[in-house]
Amino acid sequence: MSLVSNPNTAQHWPIAAAMINFPGVLADGTAVHDQPAEAWLDPLQQVADAGFDYVDPTDSWIRVADLEESRLAQFEQLLTEVGLAVGGISTARRSVIDHEHGLDYLAYSHRVIDTAARLGVSDVSFGLFEALTDAQKRALWFWTAEGHVSSPDPDSWKLAVSRFQDLAAHAERVGVHISLEMYEDTYLGTADSAVRFLTDIGSSHVWLNPDIGNLQRLHRPVEHWQSMIEKTVPHARYWHVKNYFRTEDATTGAIVTAPAPMEFGVINYRMAVRQAIATGFDGTFLCEHYGGDGLSVSATNREYLRRILPARVPRTR
Amino acid sequence: MSLVSNPNTAQHWPIAAAMINFPGVLADGTAVHDQPAEAWLDPLQQVADAGFDYVDPTDSWIRVADLEESRLAQFEQLLTEVGLAVGGISTARRSVIDHEHGLDYLAYSHRVIDTAARLGVSDVSFGLFEALTDAQKRALWFWTAEGHVSSPDPDSWKLAVSRFQDLAAHAERVGVHISLEMYEDTYLGTADSAVRFLTDIGSSHVWLNPDIGNLQRLHRPVEHWQSMIEKTVPHARYWHVKNYFRTEDATTGAIVTAPAPMEFGVINYRMAVRQAIATGFDGTFLCEHYGGDGLSVSATNREYLRRILPARVPRTR
Amino acid sequence: MSLVSNPNTAQHWPIAAAMINFPGVLADGTAVHDQPAEAWLDPLQQVADAGFDYVDPTDSWIRVADLEESRLAQFEQLLTEVGLAVGGISTARRSVIDHEHGLDYLAYSHRVIDTAARLGVSDVSFGLFEALTDAQKRALWFWTAEGHVSSPDPDSWKLAVSRFQDLAAHAERVGVHISLEMYEDTYLGTADSAVRFLTDIGSSHVWLNPDIGNLQRLHRPVEHWQSMIEKTVPHARYWHVKNYFRTEDATTGAIVTAPAPMEFGVINYRMAVRQAIATGFDGTFLCEHYGGDGLSVSATNREYLRRILPARVPRTR
Repeated sequence: MSLVSNPNTAQHWPIAAAMINFPGVLADGTAVHDQPAEAWLDPLQQVADAGFDYVDPTDSWIRVADLEESRLAQFEQLLTEVGLAVGGISTARRSVIDHEHGLDYLAYSHRVIDTAARLGVSDVSFGLFEALTDAQKRALWFWTAEGHVSSPDPDSWKLAVSRFQDLAAHAERVGVHISLEMYEDTYLGTADSAVRFLTDIGSSHVWLNPDIGNLQRLHRPVEHWQSMIEKTVPHARYWHVKNYFRTEDATTGAIVTAPAPMEFGVINYRMAVRQAIATGFDGTFLCEHYGGDGLSVSATNREYLRRILPARVPRTR
Repeated sequence: MSLVSNPNTAQHWPIAAAMINFPGVLADGTAVHDQPAEAWLDPLQQVADAGFDYVDPTDSWIRVADLEESRLAQFEQLLTEVGLAVGGISTARRSVIDHEHGLDYLAYSHRVIDTAARLGVSDVSFGLFEALTDAQKRALWFWTAEGHVSSPDPDSWKLAVSRFQDLAAHAERVGVHISLEMYEDTYLGTADSAVRFLTDIGSSHVWLNPDIGNLQRLHRPVEHWQSMIEKTVPHARYWHVKNYFRTEDATTGAIVTAPAPMEFGVINYRMAVRQAIATGFDGTFLCEHYGGDGLSVSATNREYLRRILPARVPRTR
Repeated sequence: MSLVSNPNTAQHWPIAAAMINFPGVLADGTAVHDQPAEAWLDPLQQVADAGFDYVDPTDSWIRVADLEESRLAQFEQLLTEVGLAVGGISTARRSVIDHEHGLDYLAYSHRVIDTAARLGVSDVSFGLFEALTDAQKRALWFWTAEGHVSSPDPDSWKLAVSRFQDLAAHAERVGVHISLEMYEDTYLGTADSAVRFLTDIGSSHVWLNPDIGNLQRLHRPVEHWQSMIEKTVPHARYWHVKNYFRTEDATTGAIVTAPAPMEFGVINYRMAVRQAIATGFDGTFLCEHYGGDGLSVSATNREYLRRILPARVPRTR
């Protein structure tokens, strides 16, 4: 199989921008979610001006699944005005086994699936990571402080599996696909565990979101990115991509990371993407970047992806 | 107010290159300031070749305020030849309360104002930082070694305020504006102190140069860039922009920084610039970058600014 | 002498891509060197797609000097198909004084010279660095673990000199030039030692490959890049270029490095290249980058070089 890059067709590979770079709460305490829809124009216009065709209204910005129909229609209207389509809907910190709000978030996840179907969007991303701890909220980079750790209790794992099976059945009925985001200290926190968790769910409509940037940025030893990629991309569909500089001093053990553009960080996305495609991947990319001007870096990352992407081939799995 | 970016008008926002990337002393000990003007052609041509329309003849390179008229005219002629205009005149390490040379530098600062007026340049940048210490001179990055600390004596603060009031009166008479550069361990070393210092001066012709890259690169805890920006940009005029990677390990307290292109560093300049403009900013940007090929990074930063700048609006304050 | 950059003529400066970003051993244990030539098409096509005109078939990928003539002809045929020429042939970890395989590698080096002549390539790069230690193999970045150190025995130095004199005589006979790669803990491990070693060899066909990125990335104190450049570029010919972020905390002594694009790292290649050219350099550049998508970064580095390169002038030394 030849994977020679072809700029013409590479244009057709959908690449979305996350809204994580826009605050969900304004300086005066107002939730953006509760603002009049007109207020959403400027952030969406910025995304369009940065050259994106697709956006993911990440729920740290607004929760599209919690908008009443008239407001959702306004949101759609705004997208049309600025020339954006929804590339997927990602949730963050809404674990279906959240130690406080698990059932609420399960119900919310069902609404997300329905909203995706309503908007004609085939991809949603769910995860098992929970609210930031106080130490994480105070940190410049939250991933350098200790966060919540999923329970090692096998019953908790089983509960998570069964709740995702429930969501999977719903998703399948309405033609939506769920991708599960890899995240440290959850059942999706290592490549092996993520694949095992996915296997336990066992649904044709549940995939992995191999967002291994979440793991490569940790200030602790982690599996090499390459074996993480090898294990996870055969199961990938909606893919959050981001990269980090990662320095490990093999003599002292010191580890230092920093957010990096995709081209420059430790994960070789040229190799990762080719390997994914070789195993049948044809999902949508979601560009995320924390730190500094994340939207501009996401746009830079989109252009990088366009340079390395091969011609798009029909899904073979 | 809509701040949608508009590449056509963004071109008109003046963005200058600093000469900090060119040595002031040659390998053979000659001061560039004392060279025949022809010797200045090559550095200026490099700046023009890097795509700049404006230059700041930072006084670590040559002191335009100390050139006799015939040499200043030659300097102007060179600028015309290569197609550059002066965007502003920055001084470095010429504090008017320098513990050894305060009065000399005060006189020098007056000459800088006159030279700006003579050249038709509306902006000068002054600061309170002093000569590098020996430890700083030996360091790869001078900001990781201890530098001079301004006196905590309230009389010293008052002296600095009164000397700037003197300069402000002069500047106002000749139509020049002074921007005060934020710099650690001076009265302009934190956002709060800088605003207080500016307020004490109380002149319509004295502003802040919110060069918070100077602070975000420090290997010590600093205020979050966002609150620094919120506090200082309402007072900004001539703005030295530069960025740094900044890693803080919230668990160990370790801090590591490195010079970064504006788009990639910890300061979100998209947000900072929009916030500045929303409060009335319409000043000139001065691109600085230490470490490696600073001129090329400055050119990269200029293009980044052009991408994120909104259409220029008339000054409203 | 004016060194104003001229994009038209700068195009003519040969800039090659290293094959270090492609594995020499596949996941199933097959050596790429032993694969049918067709298997080499995809990696070479990637290099050509990344915009390169020249490639260096670095021997960590395949050993062109160990190909039988029919396979070498196939290799040449592939290059023609994808539109690449060989810019030089670099060897890695084949020291002629290797503590185990010195004589084998000496014989191999002779074959490399003959192969270069056979392919019409004027440059080869040799070094004194040896196989990775186990600690280096386990490391994310091999240069942060301890490697092999050349013997301080003067007889070992003399042996190395005499073996390179032998190779130099051969190279001169067939019109090939040898560049010696700077590398830590070898006789080419500092600027001074490298120049002394070169002087001891004393051949018009032996030069330096001032790959000081190898040294600037070390997590230990090193000579400032600028004096390394001043000492070595007068002797440079085939030049491996790469860059690193390098943070040194002058107060604590902590050192952290990470692979960086040429424009952004600690070495100012604008200054280094101009200084080299001012002393007569007109060699070929070989873009290397470890970590992440090295091929894409190499392509980015090639474009950077084109921006800063002056018009090419005839060799004057």
